[in-house]
Amino acid sequence: MKLLEERISKDGVVKKGNVLKVDSFLNHQLDIKLYNEMGKEFKRLFADKNITKILTIEASGIGIAAITAQYFDVPVVFAKKSQSINLDGSTYNTKIQSFTHNRVYDVIVSKKYLSSDDHVLIIDDFLANGCAVNGLIEIIESSGASIEGIGIAIEKGFQDGGKSLRERGYQVESLAIVESMNDETGEIIFRH
Amino acid sequence: MKLLEERISKDGVVKKGNVLKVDSFLNHQLDIKLYNEMGKEFKRLFADKNITKILTIEASGIGIAAITAQYFDVPVVFAKKSQSINLDGSTYNTKIQSFTHNRVYDVIVSKKYLSSDDHVLIIDDFLANGCAVNGLIEIIESSGASIEGIGIAIEKGFQDGGKSLRERGYQVESLAIVESMNDETGEIIFRH
Repeated sequence: MKLLEERISKDGVVKKGNVLKVDSFLNHQLDIKLYNEMGKEFKRLFADKNITKILTIEASGIGIAAITAQYFDVPVVFAKKSQSINLDGSTYNTKIQSFTHNRVYDVIVSKKYLSSDDHVLIIDDFLANGCAVNGLIEIIESSGASIEGIGIAIEKGFQDGGKSLRERGYQVESLAIVESMNDETGEIIFRH
Repeated sequence: MKLLEERISKDGVVKKGNVLKVDSFLNHQLDIKLYNEMGKEFKRLFADKNITKILTIEASGIGIAAITAQYFDVPVVFAKKSQSINLDGSTYNTKIQSFTHNRVYDVIVSKKYLSSDDHVLIIDDFLANGCAVNGLIEIIESSGASIEGIGIAIEKGFQDGGKSLRERGYQVESLAIVESMNDETGEIIFRH
């Protein structure tokens, strides 16, 4: 998606350790006009799918999921990072490794909000090694719902999350795929 | 707001300890159509204000803030609950007590995204004792920005957060104010 690539080139900051900071428009300050264009693009990319629910994970996925949900006319469910895992059987649980925060989160979704009747579109801001998306897939599989696709704002194409998900047969649509980036020159090259 | 009150009466669950569960439409599963009506109502209530930015706090405020921002045509900034407070001077910091989670969070906003030129509308899902909103006010005051108003989905009118904020002169607009609720009968009475 050209608009997003241009914005990443203009306002994204490449930091050491393959970190791409997009705080100014994507995941701390949110450019809602850009979000709307992203939502429309997800709708175009998944137009042939019968989506009944969008699943994301707190916190950065929520804004994109909420705006995107308007174009699909479906509710959003966001998976919660739990302090203490709920063991009373009322939630689907998984664990997600966060490399950014260097810790493992327990992640939960109430069983009330995902069922075998659901056709789910996963939405998230970033896809790198795929830990978050794989956790959400595990939760959806526990519920018996169908996974219709995975919509990502920015994929780090040089990490293997996207490749592995596509090999498993999922429709993964990333609005911008970073092929490589250079923390010395600040250059970002996109895959097309 | 009648639509929200009706939804709370229909789908809200009153639990012991003055807990009101609205998981099914407000803060775990998100009814985006309802969110849009809430966003329109916030725009009506703050129509005379010159808003340049919406500030909320992760995670439950983000969806409401993102949808509402469309009606004001401004960006959203969400305050982050930080694992480890950033002491390099690039963030506004405060501490917020969460009674729900029985802990104190360090909360940060990058200085890049709030400045003395900003006119800020605070948006959040719940207002009870006011800890979260007071933390956001502290952050806005550190930045020198103006606070134009506070928009809340559900206020617990029997706790003193809203009263105290109104006494300090803030325009607080809560779309539903719960006057009282009964965890034995499930009855919820609204203030009008």
